[in-house]
Amino acid sequence: MHIILEPPAWLQAWMDIHQDSYPDTSTRMRLAIELSALNIEHQTGGPFGAIVFDRTTFQFISAGVNRVMACAASIAHAEIMAITAAQQQLGSFDLSARGLPSCELVSSCEPCAMCFGAVPWSGVRHLVCAARDSDARAIGFDEGPKLSNWKDALLQRGITVETDICRSDAVGILRHYAGDNGLIYNAGHDLKTD
Amino acid sequence: MHIILEPPAWLQAWMDIHQDSYPDTSTRMRLAIELSALNIEHQTGGPFGAIVFDRTTFQFISAGVNRVMACAASIAHAEIMAITAAQQQLGSFDLSARGLPSCELVSSCEPCAMCFGAVPWSGVRHLVCAARDSDARAIGFDEGPKLSNWKDALLQRGITVETDICRSDAVGILRHYAGDNGLIYNAGHDLKTD
Repeated sequence: MHIILEPPAWLQAWMDIHQDSYPDTSTRMRLAIELSALNIEHQTGGPFGAIVFDRTTFQFISAGVNRVMACAASIAHAEIMAITAAQQQLGSFDLSARGLPSCELVSSCEPCAMCFGAVPWSGVRHLVCAARDSDARAIGFDEGPKLSNWKDALLQRGITVETDICRSDAVGILRHYAGDNGLIYNAGHDLKTD
Repeated sequence: MHIILEPPAWLQAWMDIHQDSYPDTSTRMRLAIELSALNIEHQTGGPFGAIVFDRTTFQFISAGVNRVMACAASIAHAEIMAITAAQQQLGSFDLSARGLPSCELVSSCEPCAMCFGAVPWSGVRHLVCAARDSDARAIGFDEGPKLSNWKDALLQRGITVETDICRSDAVGILRHYAGDNGLIYNAGHDLKTD
């Protein structure tokens, strides 16, 4: 049986109309945050969005939103969706392989323990985050057992990290989701609404 | 564009003839190690295998092998393939959801940083490992920045861990792979053979 991770139907249309170059970091982040908001609005998943950008052209390569519940797959975090879509589109498990553009992952939230572990394998060279993991925890999402010095651990592998980019915008979306009784889908707990 | 993670063609046939109950832990592990060996033999991926078992019937729910290169997806580790296949088969992102059997992940090697982070999200209640992460590193695989007390971190979340089950068998497969010039596919390095 194949494993299929399906993006929401609206995402392709969104990508089709966002083919510009976005050299400003905050502008790129606002696009990732817009995805997190659209995922709530369309009721297609949790309040997280991520985009893989080509750091040469500043155009995006792929985009992802949280699809954990819709795809029945706990791995389907926005970062994993964006990274894997980029790899399959470019035909390489390693986004830092020779001949590929230098890639950046722009995520509306700092990575959970799994996504943190996935970043070095992905080949992205730069990570940009908006909300902090503490912001996700504040509305009930579990971020998992993660190294406290996770940014240093990435830097030691040559992956640079920028945090707090448009943080308040992203936190606003998280709070909106929680205030609207969005599902907080942590494994091992029964589903609960905050 | 859908993300598709495809198991090797031989895996379904293998699963079809392994429908027994396997109450002995070492026997279950030998099946996971057999998968790692078959993945080398068929040249369908790296030397890692993992199986999700129902801890009530001791039959398996799903099986996975490493498919990183074949699927152009750095997430396609054996554990991720097995966990996600089980979730999609049972129709739940959480293998510890009500109504589902208690699930165990049996893996031919201790989890890398990503798979470690994925375990709590998966809903598996028990993890069994053969080779140590140091054994994987010994043949050149990068295991990533992982908490040194990763077993305790899982236990604190109610996930029990057994290690060193049939370790020497699994190490034998890893060494065979390395000795046979199997590809060591770490991101950020050019592909190299050991």
